[in-house]
Amino acid sequence: MDIKDSPSAKKEQLFIIKIGGNLIDDSNKLNTFLKSYSLLNYKKILVHGGGKIATGIGKRLGITTKYINGRRITDDEAIDIVTMVYGGLINKKIVAQLQSYKCNAIGVTGADANLIPAAKREVRNIDYGWVGDIAVGSILPFYWEMFLNNNLFPIVAPLTHDGGGHILNTNADTIAASISIALSDKYEIVLIYCFDKRGVLENIYDEDSVIPLIDRSRFDELLKNNQISEGMLPKIENALSAIESGVNSIIIGNADDLLANATGEKKGTLIYKKA
Amino acid sequence: MDIKDSPSAKKEQLFIIKIGGNLIDDSNKLNTFLKSYSLLNYKKILVHGGGKIATGIGKRLGITTKYINGRRITDDEAIDIVTMVYGGLINKKIVAQLQSYKCNAIGVTGADANLIPAAKREVRNIDYGWVGDIAVGSILPFYWEMFLNNNLFPIVAPLTHDGGGHILNTNADTIAASISIALSDKYEIVLIYCFDKRGVLENIYDEDSVIPLIDRSRFDELLKNNQISEGMLPKIENALSAIESGVNSIIIGNADDLLANATGEKKGTLIYKKA
Repeated sequence: MDIKDSPSAKKEQLFIIKIGGNLIDDSNKLNTFLKSYSLLNYKKILVHGGGKIATGIGKRLGITTKYINGRRITDDEAIDIVTMVYGGLINKKIVAQLQSYKCNAIGVTGADANLIPAAKREVRNIDYGWVGDIAVGSILPFYWEMFLNNNLFPIVAPLTHDGGGHILNTNADTIAASISIALSDKYEIVLIYCFDKRGVLENIYDEDSVIPLIDRSRFDELLKNNQISEGMLPKIENALSAIESGVNSIIIGNADDLLANATGEKKGTLIYKKA
Repeated sequence: MDIKDSPSAKKEQLFIIKIGGNLIDDSNKLNTFLKSYSLLNYKKILVHGGGKIATGIGKRLGITTKYINGRRITDDEAIDIVTMVYGGLINKKIVAQLQSYKCNAIGVTGADANLIPAAKREVRNIDYGWVGDIAVGSILPFYWEMFLNNNLFPIVAPLTHDGGGHILNTNADTIAASISIALSDKYEIVLIYCFDKRGVLENIYDEDSVIPLIDRSRFDELLKNNQISEGMLPKIENALSAIESGVNSIIIGNADDLLANATGEKKGTLIYKKA
């Protein structure tokens, strides 16, 4: 059997793009990105982070963010704010902007259509509050496929739910990886993490030192040499575990390079699984 | 041809329920209502208003609601607040609560999937700001039917969009009537406006004086006798115009009576078109 005839070769491509806070906080940058995104002529899902808007609005409301041992706690007031800001303000602004670019976006949280069931993080040493963890196998493909097969493009806010009536704050990188894994049986997934650097840098002071390829052994090596920044660490760990769970390719790159990275020019860092 | 065999008799029933601000401001009442709603065993769409939460959050943010000649103006700051509160906080809380009752709710605004295209209200004497009016014929049934045929129950926030990237504040009564009219070709629509009285009252001081039936001639008569309160006036006008545009029946009643009204007990006021 020729490889082209094998079931896996017949899978349709699905792009899952994650954008982070820095992009969301800058409306000009965000609009430039959304214009590019609207031109990406594939099935696609966009996952967005939160940005500093929630913290700013919390402050103006007189609510201070609570931390225990440096970890942010999502208490009753904080979950209301992120529900408003992530699920309302940011999500619907992105949807309306994409609609103006003729991209038929539909904004969702994990509660909508029960798209991302999660569980409140177990209290061990710290009670993180209304923070959700997604169990492997809990995201079902049905409604994602229904949207994609009907020319709708889901825009996902970083919120899940516990099935008991509570919205949960959930890391957007993890949501993007979890959706990618859940849909990897049905689609050939290209997961792109957009951030403010061009990719994972060999030398954090040199923007041109993008590492083109990282697999697990290269990651272990970079880790040993202290070449991975603290913010990048969970991103790459998420990416490697997604690759090992069936996601085809993952790119960490700049939002400006979305179309280049998506069309194979690969300006960013490709995370891959050694064959 | 027997009436039962005519195409119109074969239409499936669709319930479109509108809940207002007073219910949303009282979380116990809201949860009781949502429990009833989850038990309504038909295709259904829920449209919710805004309540006082947006005004309260606006105040806490130091933003005062602007009025011109007693009419509320939705300026740049106000549209951000209603997008957060209506599209985020209220909408997603309702969705998560319904999910806990095993009702597969999906929260939407008119921007999502381009469900409710609208236009910024024309400036004549007053510029109302980011307020949307829905043109007849602009709501297409396709995605509403896709949701309903796939066991999803749309929860609609009172927000539309202009197709140019702007979210618009839009009256929830009008949204409910507009969706009802748009879907009346495909479904036998029962539109229920829930509010805090049992129905339209003959005597506003007597809760038991519910007027069981109102058609246009009865409405004109009540109007002549000054028996319609200012808040009720646009509701009944909306309802009569929806009935005249193909909506099968409209009930104005109490949220507590949802299931009774829906199953034909008709505790509220039925708005009907004289045959």
